[in-house]
Amino acid sequence: MGCKAKFNMPNTMPTVLIPLAQGCEELETVTLIDLLRRANIHVTTASLDDKPVTCARGTVILADTTLAKILLQDFDLLVLPGGLPGADNLNSDPRIHQLIDRLNIENKLIGAICAAPKVLLTNGILKDKKATAYPASLNHLDTSNINLTDAAVEIDGNVITSKGPGTAIDFSLTLIELLLGREARIAVEKPLQRS
Amino acid sequence: MGCKAKFNMPNTMPTVLIPLAQGCEELETVTLIDLLRRANIHVTTASLDDKPVTCARGTVILADTTLAKILLQDFDLLVLPGGLPGADNLNSDPRIHQLIDRLNIENKLIGAICAAPKVLLTNGILKDKKATAYPASLNHLDTSNINLTDAAVEIDGNVITSKGPGTAIDFSLTLIELLLGREARIAVEKPLQRS
Repeated sequence: MGCKAKFNMPNTMPTVLIPLAQGCEELETVTLIDLLRRANIHVTTASLDDKPVTCARGTVILADTTLAKILLQDFDLLVLPGGLPGADNLNSDPRIHQLIDRLNIENKLIGAICAAPKVLLTNGILKDKKATAYPASLNHLDTSNINLTDAAVEIDGNVITSKGPGTAIDFSLTLIELLLGREARIAVEKPLQRS
Repeated sequence: MGCKAKFNMPNTMPTVLIPLAQGCEELETVTLIDLLRRANIHVTTASLDDKPVTCARGTVILADTTLAKILLQDFDLLVLPGGLPGADNLNSDPRIHQLIDRLNIENKLIGAICAAPKVLLTNGILKDKKATAYPASLNHLDTSNINLTDAAVEIDGNVITSKGPGTAIDFSLTLIELLLGREARIAVEKPLQRS
């Protein structure tokens, strides 16, 4: 994909942090967890608070840990699921912006899907970047300094964005390819039996 | 879809039971919960035991209730997620076969995806029916009296089957269409932003 020089690649099996906010979109969240783990990537889910996470359509997920406990750990990828009010809850948590800032300075991968690209926009790391998001989810925000597209998945340097539940599999597979290469992506994609 | 006369349609908003076995496939499970609820269908998830459900790739889900508590309730659709050992755990629970028997006698809808069609095969309700399943998941079982196909989703009377994680969205949308009609399916499918 010609992106290998554009971000810091992990030397060992990559580590991924998926923060789980109350009201996150469960299909997007679980597609990311499931497919990245199928690639043997070490995925940690961390809830913003210490309660079970009630997703946007009522699925209740117990996260692996809390954000407070792993805030200073190193990760090769931070990926933000969408859903409302999940994405707004991520956006209003200063620790999420602290993580984005740190991973961005380290040139690590940062991903967001559906309504969650608004968190990256608010943070400022989308400046002068190509990005996609759920239609209308960035309304009422200033998008004048980003190149907003209608793509299912958009890659620009270390930032990867995607549109919604129906693109969650493609988004997850793209992240696998960026972290582990094309063969790893194919090894996960083929058994999914996509039609 | 010309299927409306082939099973008992609900008169009010349909009710759906999704039994959650330890080791169920989380992407399939959550896609079903999420999309059916987007159609305002009343979905109940019920764990086979009284523990949190640890899915095949480690996601931990708290079910709405336990199977013991809702075993005698009426449902318009029973749908079985795949995954291993989830599908085997469903198959070895006599209460699941009791539910299949009851809903089948009432000509209600019964669905299964991925490895879970083996439960319907073991039960006997696939006899003389067209069905699909995850490739090789029915090996070592007698499939001589069913018409096993390679379709993403197969509908035969009141029994709907599907292949795997990559067909979970199509499977869920098919169930919505069967329960509520084509407009309801389109209303859920369009906002998914499938590419």
